[in-house]
Amino acid sequence: MTEIKVVQGILKANDALAEANARRFAEHGVRALNFISSPGAGKTTLLERTLGRFKDSWRIGVVEGDIATTRDAERIQPFGVPVVQINTQGGCHLDASMVARALDALPLDALDVVFIENVGNLVCPVSYRLGEEAVVAVLSIAEGQDKPAKYPALFRRAEAMVLNKLDLAPYCDVDVETLIADTRRINPKLEIIRASCRTGEGLEAWYAWLERWLGRKEA
Amino acid sequence: MTEIKVVQGILKANDALAEANARRFAEHGVRALNFISSPGAGKTTLLERTLGRFKDSWRIGVVEGDIATTRDAERIQPFGVPVVQINTQGGCHLDASMVARALDALPLDALDVVFIENVGNLVCPVSYRLGEEAVVAVLSIAEGQDKPAKYPALFRRAEAMVLNKLDLAPYCDVDVETLIADTRRINPKLEIIRASCRTGEGLEAWYAWLERWLGRKEA
Repeated sequence: MTEIKVVQGILKANDALAEANARRFAEHGVRALNFISSPGAGKTTLLERTLGRFKDSWRIGVVEGDIATTRDAERIQPFGVPVVQINTQGGCHLDASMVARALDALPLDALDVVFIENVGNLVCPVSYRLGEEAVVAVLSIAEGQDKPAKYPALFRRAEAMVLNKLDLAPYCDVDVETLIADTRRINPKLEIIRASCRTGEGLEAWYAWLERWLGRKEA
Repeated sequence: MTEIKVVQGILKANDALAEANARRFAEHGVRALNFISSPGAGKTTLLERTLGRFKDSWRIGVVEGDIATTRDAERIQPFGVPVVQINTQGGCHLDASMVARALDALPLDALDVVFIENVGNLVCPVSYRLGEEAVVAVLSIAEGQDKPAKYPALFRRAEAMVLNKLDLAPYCDVDVETLIADTRRINPKLEIIRASCRTGEGLEAWYAWLERWLGRKEA
């Protein structure tokens, strides 16, 4: 019983810090997205593609979350946008206090958008709000068609899902239509974008979603 | 500070229960393996292949860990071996108390081996011992070559790693040799088996490792 109480305490404390981050984003007119997926689903590659497309149109900052290494931040660096690497030192998700410290290192006044790439984990990051406006799920087709049914929380919480590595579908025995139907049952409002960050297929739909999201008036 | 103390408390309590599970396995002469990977790396398919090969040679039981659904247990059922599905109800890993309850439902006296398939998660399951004799890591080549460096704890703890979905290598821009060299730096003693559970390639080396492991005298 003690364990459950403590976890609720941590989540409540995190929610308060997430609200503070959200206020800070709003005060600076910055919109924030939180990217969540399994390890290796393609979050960093999606960010690379997105920076390649929009870095001259929008002022973008990136927060990279990893357990160890600065490899992801190093992949973002060539785009010349401000990037902060958070190392969780074994922690399985970002939390709002880590992101608050990362925001101290970003020039928020000079940014329109912040992309936060979470630790690769289909479970734990879903419970920790960071102050983002929306969650984007990335799912690799190579993970198999049963993942939304087996890990429903992310797909319920996300506003958009990039179904990535579509070019691998012929080699993966995955029924894409069943996967999408299962996902829609979990969250009928989820925007599902079929794409391959490797080949570029489908990314126009992702860019269009991002532009609509950025143009959207806040509630 | 409180949070860290609590987490240590949970891990210590878990270790005590894991030791009790280990004693229970030993008393019944049962050997146990704990399979850990990201979601969709191929743990269930590896178990299907392994059951297909050994179900008439060894008396095998399976514990399936998932957040939701009984899909994995349903895939094991056709092999006619005892299988227990644990649903963690949102929990990101199995723990020793869950496994203890699963063992109540298995005919341990009539088993030689128990395969425990953990929740798909490259991070949290690594911290929770279940009473197993060894951990087997499964890594899908489609997750990219940087995963051992970015998530080192699993690869340090595991005794064998099945590098799965090798048939996807030509489509994934992954340098398999670099991946393996990185992994060996993290754990020089790790047995690395290149395989594709889909095509069957490389599985003879996995079966040979399992036979050696099962034939090995316990310390």
